[in-house]
Amino acid sequence: MNAPSIPKGTRDFGPEVMVRRNYIFSKIRSVFERYGYQPIETPSMENIETLTGKYGDEGDQLLFKILNSRQYEARNKEELLDTYKKSLEGNINSKQLTERALRYDLTVPFARFVVMNRNEISFPFKRYQIQPVWRADKPQRGRYREFYQCDVDVVGSDSLLNEVELVQIFDDVLTALKIPVVVKINNRKILSGIAELAGVGERMMDMTIAIDKLDKIGIDGVTKELRDKGFSEEAILKIIPFFNDKSDSTTRLATMRTFLASSEIGMKGLEELQFVFDYVAKLGLSTAELEFDPTLARGLNYYTGAIFEVKVRDFQMGSICGGGRYDDLTGIFGLPNVSGVGISFGADRIYDVMLEMKLFPEGSAGTTNLLFANFGGDAELRSLELMKELRASGINCEIYPDDSKMKKQFKYADDKSIPYVAIIGEDEFKNGVVTIKNMKSGEQKSVAQHEIANAIA
Amino acid sequence: MNAPSIPKGTRDFGPEVMVRRNYIFSKIRSVFERYGYQPIETPSMENIETLTGKYGDEGDQLLFKILNSRQYEARNKEELLDTYKKSLEGNINSKQLTERALRYDLTVPFARFVVMNRNEISFPFKRYQIQPVWRADKPQRGRYREFYQCDVDVVGSDSLLNEVELVQIFDDVLTALKIPVVVKINNRKILSGIAELAGVGERMMDMTIAIDKLDKIGIDGVTKELRDKGFSEEAILKIIPFFNDKSDSTTRLATMRTFLASSEIGMKGLEELQFVFDYVAKLGLSTAELEFDPTLARGLNYYTGAIFEVKVRDFQMGSICGGGRYDDLTGIFGLPNVSGVGISFGADRIYDVMLEMKLFPEGSAGTTNLLFANFGGDAELRSLELMKELRASGINCEIYPDDSKMKKQFKYADDKSIPYVAIIGEDEFKNGVVTIKNMKSGEQKSVAQHEIANAIA
Repeated sequence: MNAPSIPKGTRDFGPEVMVRRNYIFSKIRSVFERYGYQPIETPSMENIETLTGKYGDEGDQLLFKILNSRQYEARNKEELLDTYKKSLEGNINSKQLTERALRYDLTVPFARFVVMNRNEISFPFKRYQIQPVWRADKPQRGRYREFYQCDVDVVGSDSLLNEVELVQIFDDVLTALKIPVVVKINNRKILSGIAELAGVGERMMDMTIAIDKLDKIGIDGVTKELRDKGFSEEAILKIIPFFNDKSDSTTRLATMRTFLASSEIGMKGLEELQFVFDYVAKLGLSTAELEFDPTLARGLNYYTGAIFEVKVRDFQMGSICGGGRYDDLTGIFGLPNVSGVGISFGADRIYDVMLEMKLFPEGSAGTTNLLFANFGGDAELRSLELMKELRASGINCEIYPDDSKMKKQFKYADDKSIPYVAIIGEDEFKNGVVTIKNMKSGEQKSVAQHEIANAIA
Repeated sequence: MNAPSIPKGTRDFGPEVMVRRNYIFSKIRSVFERYGYQPIETPSMENIETLTGKYGDEGDQLLFKILNSRQYEARNKEELLDTYKKSLEGNINSKQLTERALRYDLTVPFARFVVMNRNEISFPFKRYQIQPVWRADKPQRGRYREFYQCDVDVVGSDSLLNEVELVQIFDDVLTALKIPVVVKINNRKILSGIAELAGVGERMMDMTIAIDKLDKIGIDGVTKELRDKGFSEEAILKIIPFFNDKSDSTTRLATMRTFLASSEIGMKGLEELQFVFDYVAKLGLSTAELEFDPTLARGLNYYTGAIFEVKVRDFQMGSICGGGRYDDLTGIFGLPNVSGVGISFGADRIYDVMLEMKLFPEGSAGTTNLLFANFGGDAELRSLELMKELRASGINCEIYPDDSKMKKQFKYADDKSIPYVAIIGEDEFKNGVVTIKNMKSGEQKSVAQHEIANAIA
């Protein structure tokens, strides 16, 4: 028999990792609910036509498609064979072969959900969704074929209070997790204004694609790319200074205001941005810093207003969160003019940051507070009775299921990061007490049996 | 454009349903942790050889298989076509077509996990797992193609304290959810003993399959089925009385003790059962009732000791939970002799029972405690400031994002089951107060702005 294995790019999460992941998810979830967002879940598999054409050609290639079950039935093999032949020739959506695929992100299924449920939904609709997504990407360090996304969106409202609120949510979640961050914000309309005034309005996407690479290729690289793409020297001279501006957000905003004065769309973007800055300043952030970054472009086509990205301060890593406003996400499913804005937390990256920066609280590796060592007989029964009381008062506890050697039982507590062990040996049983051992300090003390909860509090 | 839809047998869960489902999951999860079980998660997709052959031929047919992505690459089409042809002829595991499938249950992936991680795991290993599974079953009322399982198992311990604990877990979870239940227990060894003494030992599976149908076809149906299968009249006369015994658990145990006296395996099963009954009696159950049911057989082949099933009292529905002891689950992956015992909660059925019996607590339809009506201007900013304080003290609140008509804003609160609305109109703003409206009673009262938390407590 071959040793069992799991598919490339997927992961098992053992208890220690799970407890920490749940710590992250529960902080995220509770902040989302604090702001009035409610959970939804959509199916893991969607009809294939819901997903194809939404993520570009490359995205289509990365969908995990599910083989129709019925093809294994004995009917009409010739036709199936013909279908398969066609599918090999590139017609990848041949529905006789595959009608369903695993979701690629949470955004498209959410748009589909909104359209299907538009008559039951009370708008503005504030929802969050924490579920896995699947991509048939080449697995590599930090890139998985199955990973969780944590999305929070509001659709059906174009109020900028939503953008303000999402900045507060970044701040609350990342403060709760103790991760020091810069929340970068930009506005697609500002990028449009810059493109307009540089005389390259119709080539705004080319411009943003080049700008998006600034982190990787530097300002000279961006200049070269713009030149290679045929932008005029005059246009380049107008564009580049904004993306090479090292001053603070206030100064940047002022410079931008002068430059964009004659661009209606640019000024609109600036006004939206200013609103968010003003409100955030009035309300204050706990630990996050809000920064206007005109170089922030984000690849996704559907963004039309604010765009966000969150970076960990002084830490080498891509962004850990992102998002933005989209004016017509549900249009693809036949419901136009529903504006929305949302952000997404990257749980895997957050986990890696917290592990490296040692931000997980002590005791976050396990969930059991107390192990009763097992001495068998009457002491065992007494332990079971005590555990019943302790559990009723909210303490997670367990008994080693056999009266094995103490060494083995203590090792079990240690392996499972259980902080306390309760011992009811012959003496303790006789005297109605229990010895509590603190597994970290090694300290032992004898307490009355009804005092256990206090002793480990 | 066609209206979007979701695959047959799958479901979207909107906010109201999700909040209730999460209520169930969180009760289950917290009881599991109360008893020292820790969470794990395994990937949604497993290598196909991990799953095939584990659920019988029918199960193999119900696996959702994932199309390999690389088949769409242009290389070696002839070979792929040939593979596909073979797959149509029934060789369903042709790996060039599909190497992965979605998990069918949590038990087999768990066994695979234990074997792969045996060197890191500290045994006895107590884990719980709450994840969706997928089956390409014909969808029908109450049967879905994607549904959650909530499994809790301990492996690497044959102590009967585990069985006792699992009965306590049934009791704790279902008491917390207020579902009145009977926990039925039997032991495979008792069934073996009966078969042995009836002289049909080698046909134990045929016997249990017939017995398993008792609920559906009655005692006469079972008798007929045994006869049809060629059981002798003498054997049937010995078998039937045990399955037609209407007396209580204590009497049943006594009858069984007399009958099984000469069967070693039967007496072993009885002794195990008695242990569980004795300990459960000593510790007491809150609301569940433990009942010895010799007709309880459960189809699954791998059970070797205790078997459990939970039925809602006086309610027409199949079992809502089940489980049992298996002596060699990890044997299929090359790690023999690891005994385990576990149970599973059926979240969908529990949801249906609770809905029908109206067991969800009031206010369980939403997560927001308070909506601030939006009057724009300074009052809006004041609301944002107050919300910041309220959220810091753990209150879920939100502001309607525009100063729309009050009617619309109140409808929003109503649709979202938000119990309180805070109003800061012109007067309230001037006087530094807030009007709190109780959405259920319609009652309104004016309170100081720092008293909001108390007013809605």
